[in-house]
Amino acid sequence: MGTYRAPVEDMNFLVDEVLDVERVLGGLPDFADYGLGSELTTALIDEAAKLAGDELAPLRRVGDEHPATCADGVVTASPGFEDALNKLGEGGWIGISSDANYGGQGLPEIYNTVGTEMWNAANLALGLAPMLSSGAALAIHAHGTEEQKQTYLEKMHSGQWMGTMNLTEAGAGSDLGVMKATAVPEGDHYRIKGQKIYITWGDHQATDNIIHLVLAKLPGAPAGSRGISLFIVPKFLINEDGSLGERNDVYPVSTEHKLGIHGSPTCVMAFGDNEGALGYLLGEPNNGLACMFTMMNEARLKVGVQGLSASDGALQKAIAYARERVQGGVPIIEHADVKRMLLVMRSLTESMRALAYTEAITMDLAHRGPEAERDAQQRRVDLMIPVIKGWLTEVGQEVASLGVQVHGGMGYIEETGAAQYLRDVRITPIYEGTNGIQAADLVARKLGRDGGATMEFVAGEIRATITQLETSGDVRLAPLAAALATALSDHERTTQVVLEALRDDAAVAMGASFEYMMQTGYLLGGWHMARSALVALEKLGAGSDNPFYEAKIATAGFYAEQILPRCAGHAGAVAGAAGQLQSFPLEWM
Amino acid sequence: MGTYRAPVEDMNFLVDEVLDVERVLGGLPDFADYGLGSELTTALIDEAAKLAGDELAPLRRVGDEHPATCADGVVTASPGFEDALNKLGEGGWIGISSDANYGGQGLPEIYNTVGTEMWNAANLALGLAPMLSSGAALAIHAHGTEEQKQTYLEKMHSGQWMGTMNLTEAGAGSDLGVMKATAVPEGDHYRIKGQKIYITWGDHQATDNIIHLVLAKLPGAPAGSRGISLFIVPKFLINEDGSLGERNDVYPVSTEHKLGIHGSPTCVMAFGDNEGALGYLLGEPNNGLACMFTMMNEARLKVGVQGLSASDGALQKAIAYARERVQGGVPIIEHADVKRMLLVMRSLTESMRALAYTEAITMDLAHRGPEAERDAQQRRVDLMIPVIKGWLTEVGQEVASLGVQVHGGMGYIEETGAAQYLRDVRITPIYEGTNGIQAADLVARKLGRDGGATMEFVAGEIRATITQLETSGDVRLAPLAAALATALSDHERTTQVVLEALRDDAAVAMGASFEYMMQTGYLLGGWHMARSALVALEKLGAGSDNPFYEAKIATAGFYAEQILPRCAGHAGAVAGAAGQLQSFPLEWM
Repeated sequence: MGTYRAPVEDMNFLVDEVLDVERVLGGLPDFADYGLGSELTTALIDEAAKLAGDELAPLRRVGDEHPATCADGVVTASPGFEDALNKLGEGGWIGISSDANYGGQGLPEIYNTVGTEMWNAANLALGLAPMLSSGAALAIHAHGTEEQKQTYLEKMHSGQWMGTMNLTEAGAGSDLGVMKATAVPEGDHYRIKGQKIYITWGDHQATDNIIHLVLAKLPGAPAGSRGISLFIVPKFLINEDGSLGERNDVYPVSTEHKLGIHGSPTCVMAFGDNEGALGYLLGEPNNGLACMFTMMNEARLKVGVQGLSASDGALQKAIAYARERVQGGVPIIEHADVKRMLLVMRSLTESMRALAYTEAITMDLAHRGPEAERDAQQRRVDLMIPVIKGWLTEVGQEVASLGVQVHGGMGYIEETGAAQYLRDVRITPIYEGTNGIQAADLVARKLGRDGGATMEFVAGEIRATITQLETSGDVRLAPLAAALATALSDHERTTQVVLEALRDDAAVAMGASFEYMMQTGYLLGGWHMARSALVALEKLGAGSDNPFYEAKIATAGFYAEQILPRCAGHAGAVAGAAGQLQSFPLEWM
Repeated sequence: MGTYRAPVEDMNFLVDEVLDVERVLGGLPDFADYGLGSELTTALIDEAAKLAGDELAPLRRVGDEHPATCADGVVTASPGFEDALNKLGEGGWIGISSDANYGGQGLPEIYNTVGTEMWNAANLALGLAPMLSSGAALAIHAHGTEEQKQTYLEKMHSGQWMGTMNLTEAGAGSDLGVMKATAVPEGDHYRIKGQKIYITWGDHQATDNIIHLVLAKLPGAPAGSRGISLFIVPKFLINEDGSLGERNDVYPVSTEHKLGIHGSPTCVMAFGDNEGALGYLLGEPNNGLACMFTMMNEARLKVGVQGLSASDGALQKAIAYARERVQGGVPIIEHADVKRMLLVMRSLTESMRALAYTEAITMDLAHRGPEAERDAQQRRVDLMIPVIKGWLTEVGQEVASLGVQVHGGMGYIEETGAAQYLRDVRITPIYEGTNGIQAADLVARKLGRDGGATMEFVAGEIRATITQLETSGDVRLAPLAAALATALSDHERTTQVVLEALRDDAAVAMGASFEYMMQTGYLLGGWHMARSALVALEKLGAGSDNPFYEAKIATAGFYAEQILPRCAGHAGAVAGAAGQLQSFPLEWM
């Protein structure tokens, strides 16, 4: 019961009908030859759905019950995982939106995002492997020499090789300035020595080679984060002719015993414990952090999507259970509070999806849209990414927890598989920048750098949607318009509070940042639900009698009634951030 | 790092200074000989704290890593657990507030509640054993014959024997009406046959005997919940002289593999698989559910306290980590968002404690207070219990999850021990009546039965506290008064909405019930924080310079600024419960 099936109808609806990928991206030079549109979307989604549902999902419990292990310098992945990873690679999914000049599919990021949702909903532990690998490939693409790109990218995009990201060291965490790994020049390469922790999929036998990207310090490098360089350290060295050569001196030491994502080997990696690992500088010396963070937006979008993925997985499982489980003579889906929980899960999941997909397309426009618009689109992406990473992963906790709750006592039994969603998704507010870091980024960098101008631009778009709701003539949309208007004006006031704090007392702004991020997320979620409802209304008006569209309008209404009110709570907390949060002495804690 | 130490100063403050156990309970006939007061409180709390910190807490991770197991009809508890359980019994803690005529200590329930907080904060899996055992003893005390009480209670109160509760069967869950276990009369006893699931501490070797209370149906009993009787089924039969006789036909079949509380054996129990288990009717035939639910309020209070316990355990661990962990050159406790998380955890934990302790004393007054007041106190307890069970266990999820978040990546590693609080506490919104059931109970029964009169009485008390805050002359209390007044008037409006729905459309009231319960909890939490702040102000006015009191005022202020605003969000959701939540067709789900 409750095996994951990708919500293909929802995905098609968003990509083609709400976001209209054909109109928005189809005419761009980079995509002109692809024939973007609903036919392609449907074909891609159906194929991905098959892979996710048939190959990845059945391994979700397997990975949980048989975690990846590490012994004698070799990681053994959970049963079936390596085979499934190869299928992802062979299907072209790892490089789906990567540069076609280097073996990628060259499709828009939105299709990558849809795929990312599926892989992670089906199997979050497994979904991490392509996520990290394509991140590493992006970094090589952005900063590599032509030779490096020729050497690595095609094989990484095709999934023949995989990539990893090696940032963290013991005792450092989010603080990358404190770093001990070193790189000593030796001819055209470097000898890397050091230990890295929390390395996702740091080793496995799925592919012939693994391309590690590693942060380390050059001799005499400046102290702190400005003295860190980025290196390519392949597991197997690559001969001139492209064939694999010697084993490099990089080995997994151990894997962590984690709350969740057991199928994802989280490795301690030793570089150069013997003769020193051979590495090649990627990008400029001492510019490693900047290189590593080039693909930060893509990575954070994907982690946000993991929050969505876990939510949809939990939702599907909960609905299946609630339909089947009889209590008091009726299926529990008919119990008022179970229905409420499922609708909370459903409306939150749909709002997360709409927000994430929308910004994936914005990302496409920022990268490959009309030249003159790219800066504005990029500013918008920059503003939205911390909200997507932070809000989606926070909401993912709630939805996964509700999934457990719907199952009652069964939800607490591991074999049921509901609790795994909660355990797996619990990492997402932590990695790829904790949600506290996302909130600080949103307020201090993204809001601060243009004095809220981009946020005001988005507010203008929300106002336009409210006007559309009001003038739609449909009575069901009127309460939605009213609720959204209230949430928006609350938010505009709160934004001013935060901007003033940013000018007057940065600590107050930082203290308010998390609650502001949550308020922003709920507002954006409501806006996107409204946009979907408007498109659904249009389809119904054009003669469709598909109840799918009716459901979209009703779910948006539910969101307005049950979820949007939360904005007021967060707004209140933002307004109170100048008080005891500031003055409370730490020694009283 | 982060070993649990009971917060004895907070506990003494609440019991003696805020709740004033000496004045409120000291003069009652049942307690006259005990010398209730701060000396006794301090002595009891110190002794319990030692036991919790030194004996139970070190076993928390042990139980998690070495779950209880079941083989060949015998449960083997986690290492050290049986010894610790014996120490709890020998210390008199299991029967601390049980009838002194049957070997209990006869102390007020408030001391039992303080102890319950400690046992469960130190080790939630272990804390379940005395919790279930004293529940079983309470049922025998309330419904047993004098002979039954003589036979079982002294040994149960002293911890020589333990008790269990056997309600659930496969496929039934919260729906006890569907029950297959049978009891066939045979002389002065019955033969019980049937299988029960989710039996907490269903078997162990800690005590010579285990007294199972089992729900089963008599031949020809009415269908549904009115045809269920309650039976005493000892693991070892008891001879006339009180010595142990034959092994009874009741055996553990297996233990569940659970998300948390691994040290608590959750058993499938087989009654009468061989010759039939010997059982003795407890209370009247077909009145088993009523008998079982006699001690429901006590049990639900304790489960609510488990939410508090996990919160305090998680908080202590998070503070210790945040003080020690350096990032960016300073301990992370100095980071704005980490400080915010810790203060959220702290203020929620204190508010939960104050609410739970207050109602424990109300329970004492309902049971052993002045005869004329008992009914009113009981109505108040009845109203508060679903909020305590529901709100405290929901808030416990948030606080435990924040505890993980404060630890960053380390929080996700099981050895750190932060994630265990989250896993352990996740059962509390489910068992002893799901929180959906608590919410329905609050609205349909407790609010409905007196048209909101008891809630209005409590609102009057809150108003009185607001007046005290306003007239205190202390500027720090003015914003607290204002925030509480807003939350109260919102709540009064919401209560009317719910009461109207109850009259007009019960489904709407049920749909609103969970959000109403949460709104009520946050309001009550704020009220209790204010009461503590007023007492602290009084102590400071009387010349104390203990920063503990300053901290109480500041924490109440933080709650008003950062937590109370949540009431608005819940109020909004209650107001919207008549919309899509009702009309959304289930087939669209």
